[in-house]
Amino acid sequence: MNIGLDMMGGDFSPLEAVKGVQLYLQQSHAPATLWLVGDENQIRPLLVEHGIDAASVQVVHAPQVIEMNEHPTKALKEKQQSSIAIGFGLLAKNKMDAFISAGNTGAMLVGAHYSLKPIEGIQRPTISTVIPKENGKTGVLLDVGLNADCKPENLNQFAILGSLYAQHILGIDQPRVGLLNIGEEEGKGNLLAQATYPLLKENQQINFIGNIEGRDLLIDKADVMVCEGFTGNVILKLAESLFDISRQHKVDSAYFDRFDFEYYGGTPLLGVTKPVIIGHGISRGKSFLNMIKLAQKMLETDLLGKMKESFLS
Amino acid sequence: MNIGLDMMGGDFSPLEAVKGVQLYLQQSHAPATLWLVGDENQIRPLLVEHGIDAASVQVVHAPQVIEMNEHPTKALKEKQQSSIAIGFGLLAKNKMDAFISAGNTGAMLVGAHYSLKPIEGIQRPTISTVIPKENGKTGVLLDVGLNADCKPENLNQFAILGSLYAQHILGIDQPRVGLLNIGEEEGKGNLLAQATYPLLKENQQINFIGNIEGRDLLIDKADVMVCEGFTGNVILKLAESLFDISRQHKVDSAYFDRFDFEYYGGTPLLGVTKPVIIGHGISRGKSFLNMIKLAQKMLETDLLGKMKESFLS
Repeated sequence: MNIGLDMMGGDFSPLEAVKGVQLYLQQSHAPATLWLVGDENQIRPLLVEHGIDAASVQVVHAPQVIEMNEHPTKALKEKQQSSIAIGFGLLAKNKMDAFISAGNTGAMLVGAHYSLKPIEGIQRPTISTVIPKENGKTGVLLDVGLNADCKPENLNQFAILGSLYAQHILGIDQPRVGLLNIGEEEGKGNLLAQATYPLLKENQQINFIGNIEGRDLLIDKADVMVCEGFTGNVILKLAESLFDISRQHKVDSAYFDRFDFEYYGGTPLLGVTKPVIIGHGISRGKSFLNMIKLAQKMLETDLLGKMKESFLS
Repeated sequence: MNIGLDMMGGDFSPLEAVKGVQLYLQQSHAPATLWLVGDENQIRPLLVEHGIDAASVQVVHAPQVIEMNEHPTKALKEKQQSSIAIGFGLLAKNKMDAFISAGNTGAMLVGAHYSLKPIEGIQRPTISTVIPKENGKTGVLLDVGLNADCKPENLNQFAILGSLYAQHILGIDQPRVGLLNIGEEEGKGNLLAQATYPLLKENQQINFIGNIEGRDLLIDKADVMVCEGFTGNVILKLAESLFDISRQHKVDSAYFDRFDFEYYGGTPLLGVTKPVIIGHGISRGKSFLNMIKLAQKMLETDLLGKMKESFLS
């Protein structure tokens, strides 16, 4: 398997990306060939410095960089020699099986939109986050910002995508799907939630347990938590802030330590034909490692093949 | 001033409501006459037990109770001798200037809807919550669940109501209003947030500072945080759960202790012509005290008069 890595994305690149490559190659199970896309004048000396044999990776030179605050569509169009543009090009040509970047999120999404197709039958790809549950388990929340306005059928599809992710990546058997809502009973909620409930209830592909509320997000009630991307994004960023706050207030808690989202690496774009993983700008070596491992797991479990099957009928 | 208290509402009533009355009467500044609405056969012995002179309060007998899980509209119609129905009757007849209950939230909202008018010009009354900021300050978030689907003008009005509340009740001068959104820049967000931004920007009655994100909710960026009631309700319940979780995980933090929302007493219904305060079912004596003090402050500062003025033009 060939996993591509944007070496120029993120606040501490290419150094931290190289550290991630180093950590990956030190793993006992490291079946992927890594394609390092970026400025080779910067990358090659760092490889030497970190004792990485250049023959053990594929370095792909990309002389341009899309900066974090550039307009995604404009930047991708104008910077065709950027690491993100070249990365998606290699992905589209099947040279790479997955692509990872901690760079400009918008450019990653636009790049995926133009280079990859959605899986047939999927109306809207989605991004998710893992949510640390207070009993030690891990849930999935989606959408977390790609789809700020949704239709009921979108949420119904997110429920399937999230379930497959929870099952194959998190190893949760028959993941419990909850619809994020403002009341427990069927019929509660805004118009979207009210219209989504019956779709989830009738959906034979998921294990729907009903509505969940804000208070259930951090407890182990549902494994897959479905909402539109506005609410999901607010929750994700609020959850991320809990880590910083707990540090500032010197809260000594193994649980709040799990809100260090950098640790989880990045969020996969679900619903497209190949694994695309988007990392935080602040990603460090460990985050890059975790993103590579996530891409590897998505390929090893053939997660996308399973998604395709689910939407065939 | 006459403040009415539903003595039968809440999980620990009338005992904890009586304790709240006792605490209030012990205050050095206790200008309100309390109207205790409920089963006098239960209330009067408790008053004696707690050393409260029956002549210092007004006991209004209400033989019926609306239970927590009853259907609001149906219960109010069928139980006209319930404490909530009688309370709103006295409020409508100007015998009482404010009404407080920790009982059935739906019945309180329906009762307010039928007994009180919205302030002229206000399309939708709203409920808010205080949000403990990590630097020790306090913000206001609204709407937190009364209006699950909103129009841009609703949010614009919430911004004014929240600003007046922050100014007069929380004592914040020129409160900073933020629009809860999924990006910082103007133009970001779902359709509602995109359409709301220009209204807030043009609104001369508020101090609009732009979009805020989930990560800004707990930091001291905006004093008044505006969103529709779906997202607001999810945030409120998530925030409430942080207190329980921090206790369970033995997190020793003065900050997370401030997520004990019971302490704040209750949430006022804003936008109607009289103070109506809705408490948590689990309210204890201290919560009832704080709700009475909040009603008193709303009356002393003539908050509702100021709201009326704001919507005159």
